[in-house]
Amino acid sequence: MSENEIYLDNSATTRLCDGAIKWLNKGIELYGNPSSLHKMGNDAKKLVERAEDEIHKALGLSKRPESSSLYYKLLFTSCGTESNNLALHGVIGAKNFKFLPRVITTDSEHPSITEPLSFLQKKGLAEVVYLSTKQGKIDKDELMSALSDNTVLLSLMHVNNETGAVYPIKELFSAAKEKKPDIITHSDMTQSFLKVGGDCPYTKQGADLITISAHKVHGPKGVACLAVKNELIKSKKIIPLMQGGGQQDGYRSGTENVMGIAAFAGACEEGQKELRNGFEEKMRILRETFISRLPASVRVNSSECFAPHIISITLPDIKSQTMLSCLSGEGIYVSSGSACSSHKDTKSRTLLAFGLTPKEADCTVRVSLCRYNTKEELIRAASAITLAVGSLIRMK
Amino acid sequence: MSENEIYLDNSATTRLCDGAIKWLNKGIELYGNPSSLHKMGNDAKKLVERAEDEIHKALGLSKRPESSSLYYKLLFTSCGTESNNLALHGVIGAKNFKFLPRVITTDSEHPSITEPLSFLQKKGLAEVVYLSTKQGKIDKDELMSALSDNTVLLSLMHVNNETGAVYPIKELFSAAKEKKPDIITHSDMTQSFLKVGGDCPYTKQGADLITISAHKVHGPKGVACLAVKNELIKSKKIIPLMQGGGQQDGYRSGTENVMGIAAFAGACEEGQKELRNGFEEKMRILRETFISRLPASVRVNSSECFAPHIISITLPDIKSQTMLSCLSGEGIYVSSGSACSSHKDTKSRTLLAFGLTPKEADCTVRVSLCRYNTKEELIRAASAITLAVGSLIRMK
Repeated sequence: MSENEIYLDNSATTRLCDGAIKWLNKGIELYGNPSSLHKMGNDAKKLVERAEDEIHKALGLSKRPESSSLYYKLLFTSCGTESNNLALHGVIGAKNFKFLPRVITTDSEHPSITEPLSFLQKKGLAEVVYLSTKQGKIDKDELMSALSDNTVLLSLMHVNNETGAVYPIKELFSAAKEKKPDIITHSDMTQSFLKVGGDCPYTKQGADLITISAHKVHGPKGVACLAVKNELIKSKKIIPLMQGGGQQDGYRSGTENVMGIAAFAGACEEGQKELRNGFEEKMRILRETFISRLPASVRVNSSECFAPHIISITLPDIKSQTMLSCLSGEGIYVSSGSACSSHKDTKSRTLLAFGLTPKEADCTVRVSLCRYNTKEELIRAASAITLAVGSLIRMK
Repeated sequence: MSENEIYLDNSATTRLCDGAIKWLNKGIELYGNPSSLHKMGNDAKKLVERAEDEIHKALGLSKRPESSSLYYKLLFTSCGTESNNLALHGVIGAKNFKFLPRVITTDSEHPSITEPLSFLQKKGLAEVVYLSTKQGKIDKDELMSALSDNTVLLSLMHVNNETGAVYPIKELFSAAKEKKPDIITHSDMTQSFLKVGGDCPYTKQGADLITISAHKVHGPKGVACLAVKNELIKSKKIIPLMQGGGQQDGYRSGTENVMGIAAFAGACEEGQKELRNGFEEKMRILRETFISRLPASVRVNSSECFAPHIISITLPDIKSQTMLSCLSGEGIYVSSGSACSSHKDTKSRTLLAFGLTPKEADCTVRVSLCRYNTKEELIRAASAITLAVGSLIRMK
């Protein structure tokens, strides 16, 4: 990418940070198979363990008290999609329920949540209740009424990937567990991890299962994690998605992606520092810089509680696709909705759930930031959008 | 790894080759999400397509005739284990069979074949017939009698990962298809790909589904492939293992591991050249160098047809674990059985299937070679084993 280009699609994927590259190189050097019993294998195994420590820290656990019930076992997977599939299929497949298990989730989750749930529903293995997320809010009463005796799993994303809405998962998980102590809670934290710090570590939000992904936090694509609370492992409330050589205690067979796991840790190490050093404040400033320069005809879709690094804007009757191409021509990269659904010609389910009309959803652009973005870039982007809006409207 | 160390565990995993690193760096540079519609996304997408071309070539397809029934769609996965799981669960899950589908395989497959099959069997979703591979041979008549009306899948590995035995899959697949034209054939080619060239490309061996893995051929861990014959896709004879954003035509959701896929292609590009430039002959020479220097008390477990890069030796009443530690102390890295089962205290199923007694299996070491190994290294390794055998026997 040249210096003139501006990458504002960081919720789709991010560039590798120096920390990730440093650890990636360690992974290239220590190329043994962690299952091998010789020194090369052992070196690779130790690198994975050091990576685990770093990722545990980033999740809010200061050490690895493996015996503690608060301990989370990290299952390394290949992507957020696999982590989410493992959480859902793993929990529903673990027990021979004598009833139809209910899963409660929201109407604006990532397809890697909704699609496995549709699959399970079609197979007659689960029923699914979707909570409304209109205006980025979840109604606690709606959750409480949905919590039936047959509810086994509650999966709520932390930060919405298209609108940046922060869902109050801590409060909701806590309320759900109070009413139904044996409920299993899962949160897809792909978009909040190392982006939204707040005063509560990720592992203190009340989720028994946590999905995080490396390539959203300046780590590499091809590696992610499902953090699983010890309790669930001990009580066998989750089973693996695939079977094989028994790596990762049998919960995720396959030779560990040592290089990827190491690079993930490097990204976590660096990301934690950034978070401590005012990442969120920086995002807020960049967001404000951008938003304040948009023309009045552009609407910002913001919820009461939002993550500043994701900005959703609705254009005045200009298709997002048109704007995207127009900006891409100038070296400015934004997205329409989430990346994975970009090639599909369907309206964003998430934006409709937020309360947008189908037409508005069609005209909505996502601008997503990272720590490498500068005020100057956001000023240029806002200016390019302003110009494009002007000329595209005149063309009509 | 220092220059004095000798890595002879290349069937467990391999170091990255220069070609893989070159392409890996392209993947780091072009960090867009292939699903994104802007230039960065498009650049990443094109890199994946170029990688596909390279891997197609390595598999024996000179171009990508997507419309042809001979075309193989490459589904990128995270490891050989996932590819094998996708093949087995994908085929058995695809149809609502009105009968109990039979899967035929061998008694010496990798756990990523046997474990999913055990799982399917326990769930009552399939019955499994294991063909004998005694002395590294498969009896065609045994296969023919196993081929019942309810047989839907035949999965035969190409090269055994512990003994190096080459199974005559072309002949067996062809015979099976002649008797039962609708049978689906799968081959785990993890240990043959870019190691055993012969006169028949991998895609001409008669397998509808082919598993290959990057980290066995000097590519990175964390990326592998299931090559699927077009026909199977068209007739919906395989379903995905996980559901999500619909990447890879819905057959493998999750953001593509661009860097890993690129590095896999780089490894394939280099590996093909090596294969054309006498890789197998080099392996035969290294093998001969090694074997000819072993003491008479060490037995080589060789089958009639074998891949020279995998050498299985049985020691005279010395546990493989003892030898392994002894050699590791001197910087020589070999393995006992396959890497993934190293931490388990069970006898190698594969070695027992080959015809070894449990005691012999316990005393068996695998030495696996790659193109970076030298004659000098094999001479040193043979000498170290000779010395160790002498002193360990005296200690008894």
